[in-house]
Amino acid sequence: MTTMEVAERLVALCREGKIMEAQQELYADNCVSIEPAGAPMSRAEGLTAIIAKSKHFDEMVEEFHGAQISNPVEGGGFFSISWHMDVTMKGMGRQHMNEVCLYQVVNGKIVSEQFFYSMPS
Amino acid sequence: MTTMEVAERLVALCREGKIMEAQQELYADNCVSIEPAGAPMSRAEGLTAIIAKSKHFDEMVEEFHGAQISNPVEGGGFFSISWHMDVTMKGMGRQHMNEVCLYQVVNGKIVSEQFFYSMPS
Repeated sequence: MTTMEVAERLVALCREGKIMEAQQELYADNCVSIEPAGAPMSRAEGLTAIIAKSKHFDEMVEEFHGAQISNPVEGGGFFSISWHMDVTMKGMGRQHMNEVCLYQVVNGKIVSEQFFYSMPS
Repeated sequence: MTTMEVAERLVALCREGKIMEAQQELYADNCVSIEPAGAPMSRAEGLTAIIAKSKHFDEMVEEFHGAQISNPVEGGGFFSISWHMDVTMKGMGRQHMNEVCLYQVVNGKIVSEQFFYSMPS
């Protein structure tokens, strides 16, 4: 798959809420996941750890209200999407989570995901 | 300006080839510019250094054949665009440069630009 084909498949699965299915299908076994410095779980290494991180997030969700995922932009073996999510987290109330997500693709597999959003100062 | 307004203004100016004008107008004085590790000029700090980097790039160009810049995707105080450029560089021949460019906006100004593309191994 080309980088753009991987990007479009990821977006399609995520829009259906199939996050872990997307990870299983599209991520390399040695994929890394990187959050901003200071965020919880700021680095996960390997597909098993990334799927565990997704499960952990799901367990923190009280109610999912909706998400908007942009079409991807692609270049140089990378692609990015924006993600706007409206969700009530257990013990934290309703949150609007907005970020840019950047992915690197090598040999048709996602080898890194990195999330960009402003941390509260 | 909102992050999306900054993004759309940057794209509009860059599509007109007005790169340094965009930097002058939209970048914070202490903006940083980051290329992949191992790339030439992998970090420039401050608007003056960033504009000098742009001038240096222009001086290396023999002939500019065209560029395609995507619409931006935006979230969490960041936006990204893709950039596909067809250019003949002095002594290097015709190059297709493709990348994802990621920008952080704080108080209506771009405080960082980061370029993502695969380095030759």
